[in-house]
Amino acid sequence: MSDPIENSENIVIEGAYCPLPLEHSEQIVIGHGSGGKMTHDLIQKVFHPYFKNEYLAQGNDFSLIVPDRFDRNKNWVFTTDSHVVTPLFFPGGDIGRLAICGTVNDICVSGGQPLFLTAGFIIEEGLSISVLHKVLASMREAANEAGVSIIAGDTKVVEKGKADQLFITTSGFGLASPLIQLGGQFAKPGDQVIITGTIGDHGIAVLAARGELGFSSDIQSDVAPLNHMVQSLLEVAPHTHVIRDPTRGGLATTLNEIARQSNVGIVIDEINIPVNPTVHSVCELMGFDPLYIANEGKLVIIVPEEEADLALKEVQSTLYGGKAAIIGKIVSEPPKRVLLKTTMGGTRILDMLAGEMLPRIC
Amino acid sequence: MSDPIENSENIVIEGAYCPLPLEHSEQIVIGHGSGGKMTHDLIQKVFHPYFKNEYLAQGNDFSLIVPDRFDRNKNWVFTTDSHVVTPLFFPGGDIGRLAICGTVNDICVSGGQPLFLTAGFIIEEGLSISVLHKVLASMREAANEAGVSIIAGDTKVVEKGKADQLFITTSGFGLASPLIQLGGQFAKPGDQVIITGTIGDHGIAVLAARGELGFSSDIQSDVAPLNHMVQSLLEVAPHTHVIRDPTRGGLATTLNEIARQSNVGIVIDEINIPVNPTVHSVCELMGFDPLYIANEGKLVIIVPEEEADLALKEVQSTLYGGKAAIIGKIVSEPPKRVLLKTTMGGTRILDMLAGEMLPRIC
Repeated sequence: MSDPIENSENIVIEGAYCPLPLEHSEQIVIGHGSGGKMTHDLIQKVFHPYFKNEYLAQGNDFSLIVPDRFDRNKNWVFTTDSHVVTPLFFPGGDIGRLAICGTVNDICVSGGQPLFLTAGFIIEEGLSISVLHKVLASMREAANEAGVSIIAGDTKVVEKGKADQLFITTSGFGLASPLIQLGGQFAKPGDQVIITGTIGDHGIAVLAARGELGFSSDIQSDVAPLNHMVQSLLEVAPHTHVIRDPTRGGLATTLNEIARQSNVGIVIDEINIPVNPTVHSVCELMGFDPLYIANEGKLVIIVPEEEADLALKEVQSTLYGGKAAIIGKIVSEPPKRVLLKTTMGGTRILDMLAGEMLPRIC
Repeated sequence: MSDPIENSENIVIEGAYCPLPLEHSEQIVIGHGSGGKMTHDLIQKVFHPYFKNEYLAQGNDFSLIVPDRFDRNKNWVFTTDSHVVTPLFFPGGDIGRLAICGTVNDICVSGGQPLFLTAGFIIEEGLSISVLHKVLASMREAANEAGVSIIAGDTKVVEKGKADQLFITTSGFGLASPLIQLGGQFAKPGDQVIITGTIGDHGIAVLAARGELGFSSDIQSDVAPLNHMVQSLLEVAPHTHVIRDPTRGGLATTLNEIARQSNVGIVIDEINIPVNPTVHSVCELMGFDPLYIANEGKLVIIVPEEEADLALKEVQSTLYGGKAAIIGKIVSEPPKRVLLKTTMGGTRILDMLAGEMLPRIC
C-alpha cells in the first residue's frame, strides 16, 4: 500500500501511512473502525486468515453466491453491518434508518434486489422504551420505503455502562439476476465515474448533532435506501461495472478500494464533485476533507463511457439523485492509484483514509 | 399469561408474574434480556407492532420462507443472534464458539441445513488483538465442525467504556426440505418429549468463570453445533414435530413457549431430567433451578410416540447426545401449561422464567 509512485509528475503525496504490525501484543484502537487503511489492515491480517473463502475474497460489501445446485435463475446476495452511531438521533435520520439503509444499500450495489433483513439489538440497561419506539418506527418506515421485510430479530440487554444505549446489527439477503455483473473488480479504463450527489452530508450532520461544531447548522444526513435508484440505473445502463456506497472513509477511500480491486487508476476532478456549501464551510473551519467524510445515501457508479450520459440523466431523475455528476474517469496508469485534479490545477494522489477522523459515524 | 388455572388438582403455582406495562415512560432493565417473560413481553408489545409479518408471526427462533416464485425444491431459513456473554472465555467455550453454534442451532432446529453465516463485530477500544485471534480461531473451528462458511462480516470499534470488550452478532442462512415441517406450533397430544442431555451446564460454567461460585468446579459449557445430530435424528424420525434449543430461560421457558404455540399441555417427570451432579449441587447452594438455566448444546425434541424410541437411540449415538432421555409427554389439558411431576410425587406448574437469573449468559 505504500509503494513508491512511479510516473508521477506534478504529484504531491499525502496521507503518509505507517502500516500497523497487528501483532498479538497490539490493542484495538479507534482507527481500526474507521473504514480506512487500519480497518483494511485489521481485516486482511487478523480476520481473513481465519475465514478465507471465495465469498469473502470477492472484497465487496456484499457476498454473491451462485447457487447452481439450487436455483439457476437467481444469484443470492448476503451482507451484514453493525451500527454504533452516536448520538442515536441526528438531523435527517437516526440509528434505525441507518441500520436499514446501510444494509439495503450494501445489497443493492450488487445489482440485487434486497428482500429480507434480520436485526440484532444490543441494548444498554436504562434505555427509555420511548427511544426504542422511535427507532423501531424509523426502521419500519425505511424498510417500507425500500420494500424489505424484517424476518428475524434478537434482543440482548447489557448492564448500564457496558454498551452505549443501543447498537443494531442488520444482515440482508437479496436476489440478483445472473445477467448483472457488478463489483469493485470490474472497473475498466475509459469508464466514467458518477457520484449521485453532494458528499460529506452524513458525517457532518452527525458531528453537528454531537454539538461538536460549536454552532448550529442546517445540514441533514443523506441516509436513504438507494435500491430503487439502482434498479432505475440498471434499466438504462445495464453494462454498469461498479456501484459502491462511499460510507466510512468517504469517497476517497471507496475510490481507492475500487482502484486496487480493478488494478486501474482513477482520475477525478475536484471542481466537479458536488459539496453542499455548508459542508464545505464546516470542513474548512474544522480542518476536515469532505472526500473522507462518510455518506449514507450516495453511490459511486462506474459505467462504460457510452452509457454514462444516460446513466447520469436517469440517476438525476430519481428521488435521491438530483445532484448527481460525472466526476472523473478510469485510466490504466498509474494502477491502484486515485489522482485528484485540484481546482488549483495541480494533481495529487488521493490515498485511503489512514486513521480515524470521525469515530462512530455509522 | 396470568390466566387462572382450571382443572388444577395438586398443583402449586410458582413464579407469580407482574406483567410490565411497557409504556413509553418505562426503561429497559436487565430482565428484558432474560429470554423469559419480560423478553417475550418486550418483543410482543414493542417490537412486533412495528415489524408484523408472516415470518415473525411463526414465533420460532428461525424464519422459514417458501420461495415459491424462486425455487420449488428448497425452503429458505434465516436467523440472527447477538452475543454479549461475559466473560469472553469460559470452561468449554468462548464467545466465538457461542456465536457460531447459537446461529447454527437456530437454523438446524428448523430441520434445515445451515450453509452461510455473517458476523458483525462490535469491539471496545483497547481489546487485545490476541483475544481477537483466539475468538476468531474458535469461530473457525466451530464453523468447520458445523460445515458452514462465514461469507460476510463487519467490524465497528467504540471508545473504551462504551462496550464490554467484544459483542458478536451472527446471522445464518440455510436450506430446508419442504418435506420436513418442524416448529413450536406442531406439538400433538401423545408426543414424547426428549432432552438430548444434562441441563444447565452452560449457565453454571459461565457463572463459574465469573468467579461467582466462590469455589472451583469442573463444569464445562455444553456449547456445540447440533446440526449433525438433527440430521441423524430426522433420518430415523422424519415425523418429528418440534426441535428447539433451550438457551436463555432454560428448559422450562422453552417448554412453555412450545405449549403456548401448540395450544397443548406438557407434563414432564423431574426424575427423568438429566442433571450433572455438580450443576445440581451448585444450584442447590446458590438457590437456582437448573430448569431455568441456559443450555447451548442441547435440544428439546418432540416426536410422535411411535418414533420416540428410535429417535432417542439415534440421538444417544451422536457426539453430543450420549445422555439423552425421554422426560415427558404432550397432553391436551391443561392447554398452554407445563406441569412438572416432582421427585416428591407432587405436580406443580412450571412457568416461564419471569425476570433474569443470570444476565449475559450468551
